[in-house]
Amino acid sequence: MKTYNIAVLAGDGIGPEVMAEALKVLDAVSQKFAFAVKTQSALVGGAAIDAHGEALPAATLELCKQSDAILFGSVGGPKWTSLPPAQQPERASLLPLRKTFDLFCNLRPGKIYPAFADLSPIHPRTSSLGMDILCVRELTGGIYFGEKGRTDTAAFDTQTYSVAEIERIARVAFEAAGKRSNKVTSIDKANVLATSVLWREVVSRIAKDYPAVALDHMYIDNAAMQLIRSPQQFDVLLCDNLFGDILSDELAAIAGSLGLLPSASLNGSNFGLYEPAGGSAPDIAGQGIANPVAQILSAALLLRFSCGEEAAARAIETAVEQSLEQGIVTRDINPAAGYNTRDIGDAIVRFI
Amino acid sequence: MKTYNIAVLAGDGIGPEVMAEALKVLDAVSQKFAFAVKTQSALVGGAAIDAHGEALPAATLELCKQSDAILFGSVGGPKWTSLPPAQQPERASLLPLRKTFDLFCNLRPGKIYPAFADLSPIHPRTSSLGMDILCVRELTGGIYFGEKGRTDTAAFDTQTYSVAEIERIARVAFEAAGKRSNKVTSIDKANVLATSVLWREVVSRIAKDYPAVALDHMYIDNAAMQLIRSPQQFDVLLCDNLFGDILSDELAAIAGSLGLLPSASLNGSNFGLYEPAGGSAPDIAGQGIANPVAQILSAALLLRFSCGEEAAARAIETAVEQSLEQGIVTRDINPAAGYNTRDIGDAIVRFI
Ligand SMILES: CC(C)[C@H](C(=O)O)[C@@H](O)C(=O)O
Ligand SMILES: CC(C)[C@H](C(=O)O)[C@@H](O)C(=O)O
Repeated sequence: MKTYNIAVLAGDGIGPEVMAEALKVLDAVSQKFAFAVKTQSALVGGAAIDAHGEALPAATLELCKQSDAILFGSVGGPKWTSLPPAQQPERASLLPLRKTFDLFCNLRPGKIYPAFADLSPIHPRTSSLGMDILCVRELTGGIYFGEKGRTDTAAFDTQTYSVAEIERIARVAFEAAGKRSNKVTSIDKANVLATSVLWREVVSRIAKDYPAVALDHMYIDNAAMQLIRSPQQFDVLLCDNLFGDILSDELAAIAGSLGLLPSASLNGSNFGLYEPAGGSAPDIAGQGIANPVAQILSAALLLRFSCGEEAAARAIETAVEQSLEQGIVTRDINPAAGYNTRDIGDAIVRFI
Repeated sequence: MKTYNIAVLAGDGIGPEVMAEALKVLDAVSQKFAFAVKTQSALVGGAAIDAHGEALPAATLELCKQSDAILFGSVGGPKWTSLPPAQQPERASLLPLRKTFDLFCNLRPGKIYPAFADLSPIHPRTSSLGMDILCVRELTGGIYFGEKGRTDTAAFDTQTYSVAEIERIARVAFEAAGKRSNKVTSIDKANVLATSVLWREVVSRIAKDYPAVALDHMYIDNAAMQLIRSPQQFDVLLCDNLFGDILSDELAAIAGSLGLLPSASLNGSNFGLYEPAGGSAPDIAGQGIANPVAQILSAALLLRFSCGEEAAARAIETAVEQSLEQGIVTRDINPAAGYNTRDIGDAIVRFI
């Protein structure tokens, strides 16, 4: 029987409780589809800072290296906000993980589920109802990782992009669009940035390999506006690291259902890191009321991209849709529904 | 009689038609408040490229240097989109104007007029109704003007900020907040950028000079989300050049009424450049249906900041509010209202 080794980094806040539901669901699909999932847990984020003085201890990194994929929860909380920004749990765990495993490609779907259109802060008159966007974000380059420094009187950051870095992320976007609605909107600031001029050139050249996919270029400021004015115009958004950070969060806000949105960070091999788009929600942690759907859908992405278990991934996604349709949702989705974290996991397991 | 010399750069698209209304209104207030406005027009943007091969001809720049302020229309259109990004009308006129006159401070109000809340694509259940935000954007530093370059295989941009650059824009934000709701939210990405760490330090230090004003720091990705989720939480947004470019456009989209939003770009002396937040709208140019309100409100800001004619500025703003309240609006605001560009200018003149 095929066996997949998964590093489980539940993290802080609601991380552990929603992770428990994702593991329950992984267990259920593995039985149904006859493969084995071997999970091993390790500390990360604030919990790891408390125990070992660092957000990503060597033992945690070692476990990740020996695994086929990482299922990541969420990290951070008020306890650690007084740390210097660069040492905060989220940054100090995610950036080294991305760099170590060359996770250059971040995929974040943002869609408005018609049944839950009410969740979106966008008025339906914008026809946001049809919104179904995949944000493809470059994750290991740009201003995040360029040279930086400071003196007493000034500071600087450098954004660099190489042709090779742009090519590989562009290909991901075009491949993805080919399986969706055949449209890529590439985001840049080519009227100001040299890296954006190169970005635009390389993306345009790669587009020629995908004649069925339409390519548009859009300035980041205009994109931040258009996403709100008519989100249904987009299919795949192709972004550099910084612009993708901003637009994917704007997209999540527009979808209105942070608790439903998963993400995948990939490196072109089978390895990947999978995490919910939302945060550790310390205000509701430990109460058993957090929405586990984003974590469960992240596990589905893990099965799809790191294990090639497409049928099992689809089974989870279908089960999630069924439980949503039947109104089995936590209070962030419907305050009157009365279901808790565990009820959602149980229902999804039943539908599998 | 006091006389103000205004350089009028109407530009392309709807620029000339909305500018005509702003000049009509300037004329009316100058009579009422007993000062003289001497306007001189010059070509800018696409029109200047067509006539002289450059978006900002020397004669135009010279006129600006001899004036007390610039009233700018809007530039660009489909005719010039095939030019290389760096030569496009908007960029090739605005960036040199900002740099030449050291216009380090961009002010962009974004508010939802309760009477026109329907214009906002944001659902009223987010209590966006109360939104009234002033975006204070640094305009002559950061990644826009840092060293940039490229080779065959890579490109780079540099973002630099000095303490002095951050101090002067921070003071503008705190002064403005003191006259509004006493709250500054400073935007950065201090968990990633060295310039943001410096930004946060300097802003925190300057805040001590304004004890009545509350200061919050927020990461740009979170801000892009929060602006949509609960825009009423913000008063003054303090942003660097790039983040301000993105958030001010997001803000305009949320307000939903691009045709109503003015902007001011200042340098700490009386000089300034004033322009509508919206673009040249080539699709409706020449039809006499464009909304002139943003251009008219830009003229009000000009009187306030460059001429010290506060009463005249207020008179324009009050007249605009009255005409809006009476439903005298172009079709972007209410398709059924049946008013044209000129009707709006005439009505505002009547209310003055
Ligand atoms: C924690 C932070 C460094 C990170 C980023 O900016 O990439 C986060 O915002 C994200 O998007 O995953
Ligand atoms: C034209 C462009 C360079 C400019 C900017 O990015 O500053 C514009 O988007 C703006 O915001 O005024």
